[in-house]
Amino acid sequence: MEKKVLIYDTTLRDGTQAEGVNVSVEDKLRITEKLDDFGIHYIEGGWPGSNPKDDQYFKEVKKLNLKNSKIAAFGSTRRAYLKVEDDPLVQNLVKAETPVITIFGKSWDIHVTQALKTDLEKNLEMVFDTVQFLKKHTDEVVFIGEHFFDGYKSNPEYAVKVLNAASEGGADFLVLADTNGGTLPNEIERIIKEVKERGINNRLGIHAHNDSDTAVWNSIVAVLNGAVQVHGTINGFGERCGNANLCSIIPDLTLKLGYETIPRENIKRLKEISNFVADLVNLPVPKNMPYVGDSAFAHKGGVHASAVIKNSRLYEHIDPEQVGNRRKILVSDLAGKSNIIYKARELGIQLDEKDPRIAELVREIKQLENYGYHFEAAEASLELLIRKHLGMLKKYFDLDAYRVLIARRYTDKEPVSEATVRIKIDNHYEHTASLGYGPVNALDRALKKALVGIYPSLAEVELIDYKVRIVNETAGTAAKIRVLVESKDREKKWGTVGVSDNIIEASWQAVVDSFIYKLMKDGV
Amino acid sequence: MEKKVLIYDTTLRDGTQAEGVNVSVEDKLRITEKLDDFGIHYIEGGWPGSNPKDDQYFKEVKKLNLKNSKIAAFGSTRRAYLKVEDDPLVQNLVKAETPVITIFGKSWDIHVTQALKTDLEKNLEMVFDTVQFLKKHTDEVVFIGEHFFDGYKSNPEYAVKVLNAASEGGADFLVLADTNGGTLPNEIERIIKEVKERGINNRLGIHAHNDSDTAVWNSIVAVLNGAVQVHGTINGFGERCGNANLCSIIPDLTLKLGYETIPRENIKRLKEISNFVADLVNLPVPKNMPYVGDSAFAHKGGVHASAVIKNSRLYEHIDPEQVGNRRKILVSDLAGKSNIIYKARELGIQLDEKDPRIAELVREIKQLENYGYHFEAAEASLELLIRKHLGMLKKYFDLDAYRVLIARRYTDKEPVSEATVRIKIDNHYEHTASLGYGPVNALDRALKKALVGIYPSLAEVELIDYKVRIVNETAGTAAKIRVLVESKDREKKWGTVGVSDNIIEASWQAVVDSFIYKLMKDGV
Repeated sequence: MEKKVLIYDTTLRDGTQAEGVNVSVEDKLRITEKLDDFGIHYIEGGWPGSNPKDDQYFKEVKKLNLKNSKIAAFGSTRRAYLKVEDDPLVQNLVKAETPVITIFGKSWDIHVTQALKTDLEKNLEMVFDTVQFLKKHTDEVVFIGEHFFDGYKSNPEYAVKVLNAASEGGADFLVLADTNGGTLPNEIERIIKEVKERGINNRLGIHAHNDSDTAVWNSIVAVLNGAVQVHGTINGFGERCGNANLCSIIPDLTLKLGYETIPRENIKRLKEISNFVADLVNLPVPKNMPYVGDSAFAHKGGVHASAVIKNSRLYEHIDPEQVGNRRKILVSDLAGKSNIIYKARELGIQLDEKDPRIAELVREIKQLENYGYHFEAAEASLELLIRKHLGMLKKYFDLDAYRVLIARRYTDKEPVSEATVRIKIDNHYEHTASLGYGPVNALDRALKKALVGIYPSLAEVELIDYKVRIVNETAGTAAKIRVLVESKDREKKWGTVGVSDNIIEASWQAVVDSFIYKLMKDGV
Repeated sequence: MEKKVLIYDTTLRDGTQAEGVNVSVEDKLRITEKLDDFGIHYIEGGWPGSNPKDDQYFKEVKKLNLKNSKIAAFGSTRRAYLKVEDDPLVQNLVKAETPVITIFGKSWDIHVTQALKTDLEKNLEMVFDTVQFLKKHTDEVVFIGEHFFDGYKSNPEYAVKVLNAASEGGADFLVLADTNGGTLPNEIERIIKEVKERGINNRLGIHAHNDSDTAVWNSIVAVLNGAVQVHGTINGFGERCGNANLCSIIPDLTLKLGYETIPRENIKRLKEISNFVADLVNLPVPKNMPYVGDSAFAHKGGVHASAVIKNSRLYEHIDPEQVGNRRKILVSDLAGKSNIIYKARELGIQLDEKDPRIAELVREIKQLENYGYHFEAAEASLELLIRKHLGMLKKYFDLDAYRVLIARRYTDKEPVSEATVRIKIDNHYEHTASLGYGPVNALDRALKKALVGIYPSLAEVELIDYKVRIVNETAGTAAKIRVLVESKDREKKWGTVGVSDNIIEASWQAVVDSFIYKLMKDGV
């Protein structure tokens, strides 16, 4: 019998509390669509009213046509000195117009008295009022007992009263949060059992942080004891040591413990989702991250490696393809082949499995990935690569040369950036120059200038996002650099990629790919 | 009552199986001394006979005057077709002359038949013979049942027979290994209980890998069920997803569960040990690693931050000083006065709350953050800003001009990058030029060339990480760009930041800050 667990993703809210993360509204919307497509049940999008970016997000997200996910707005109980209907923080939640509203309330007595500076009874009213009020304005209310486990250890009666107040207000889920991440699995288990013995029979959820390095098992042990909603983030991104890692929890629950989480056929996209989110929030996935890391199925030593080939069950806990990862030993190209056929089919290209060009293509892609290319968020570049390989891509122009100059004197407020581009179309040369806000902008403009006379539709192309990632960090300013560019025209957005140890060259590759993709897709 | 758990470190053997690790004999000896000083009970130094480096290590390690640690040599049971005393692999173990010898034996039936290609009975003899033989030549023999949990699930009777063979041979510890890392804590617990019910009453150990993201709790749950020896590595370094992380297990066991592991007063050196090993094996410690990561106690949001300062117990699971880490208040958008005062105090600058310069400084920081600066990961730039604002920063040089040229012709494989820098020190001009792997590397080199004659210590500065982030994404290649640079010298690492709509200018600012910080901190 399969039991169902609802996956509640808070990458866009708690995940963005990670040091160094700063995502745009556009990033958040792209992640939302991806998680929806992946089959996540709940997506916590942000905290309405906390900043203009989140407000914009909740406006835009309503326009998306989501198939699987419910969007949740996050906030807190009303303030002690305001009526619930008069509290603008609560009103902001309603205005977000989401099908789910999630609020946290204090459940640790000393937090009520010392952080909120109110009394214990008052806090219970705040919990009850806020849940009851919100329940009138949305389909589902999720209540998070903040610091629940610390609270329970300090004052179990009071912690349970807080849950009861939320329950009486009509909360659909009572989520027990280990906000400081200090609780170990044996305590999680004991406390959930006791909470049930104390009469809580609501649908429970778990929200764990990784400060004790046990967040994954803290979450799972809660499920084994009856929790039906698991909060976490992609790659475990989050403040301090991060949130519970959904990229580990989902396969542990489904592949090992027989729970139903996201649709089973989507689990093989786990690594893709992990990389996509990492690229957009600009945090790396550690190589040794379970299931999704690049080295998660890497075998060193030769004997071991050859044994793996003979019978992988001997040395691998799961088949890496189950999570979209792959064994890292140069064995066979079979792993990638089916991916490529799948990809090509998506592009409307039917390929025969025995077509020898597929193996070559897989080899080429592996080489590029080894060099530092990432195609997860650069599907336009991947499509160009596939089409080129299959002889299905026109030659639109040839590069002859480019040159960029950046110069600044101490009297200047800003440096000047100038680019020149010389390209060849048929037997004709175009040689153009442009200034720009920076070297890449200058190159972008000079190239567009050179091409737009012959290909007027390129005027519609707008580069809307530009991301830079160091591939081999330890080499400092001599490191290899990956540039991801997102472009759009009136109809569509697309991503392209370039890699080089020169940031200008990497950017140039991505910009050139973007222009070629535009021409290709328009059938020029 | 405190119960004692023996910590068995295999960083030098299993840990070096991690991708990208390559340590010298000298490195291994330095790590040995450090771990001994830290109070680790067992240090597995390598596999004698497997490579010349390990042989050299075992020769040298005998000369060290260790206070706490016993050195273990690692190897396997004798081969099926040789008598134990004739097997050179076993003789190598004896020749290492260590007080402890650790061998693994197969305990999964299909491994015996498919990998060893021998029969089940023969394997039992191999285990018994080898343990009995080694026990005559050393003080302690540790027996590791390889793939024990998978073996037990496949054939429990046989797995237990293997343990019994080692026990009869005289093994001092029977270590149950989850070699593929696929076993979850609930199974670890069940199987250890059953093993005891089947009559195994020896001293047990646990050897876990992190493929299911539960290695820490797998190890601890074994301890809770009676295991007295825990195998793991510093920072969890190891093949695939790594070994069980001792930097989490040690504080979980001692600070939270009341076990005696390493001497209690040494726990506060945990972060130091973690960094030391990471530097020597040349793998980074992820910022969000529990207990020892740089962000493990980092607090973002301003309200939250001010609450932490008031009563840290509310928001931290342990006092960071207990593990030698420290609280990190991230100066982000919400920068307030109390953050700045706290920050200044960290830098050894006492500020009066009423000092009017603080309000100005907060205003300036907010303006810079609004423009796109981030000081969270650029504490050196923040320190320079604070010191400059308070008139506590020397002027080391003036910029006169820089110029960077990047050029590529279609015949070139890579573009060429050339930078020139002209600076003024006192009334003297330095004008230098350099090529580089890319424009930033060329600038970095040219600037160092210009300064190193007057400030020779700058030769020690190495730029080890370089991050680029677009601040206002929607402007495409005309967007504002933030560059974060991480630098180090022999003693320390520091982060600096630059922002501009020109990536070269932003990088320049961060590199210049890094050099100034180095001079300032050295008291030049």
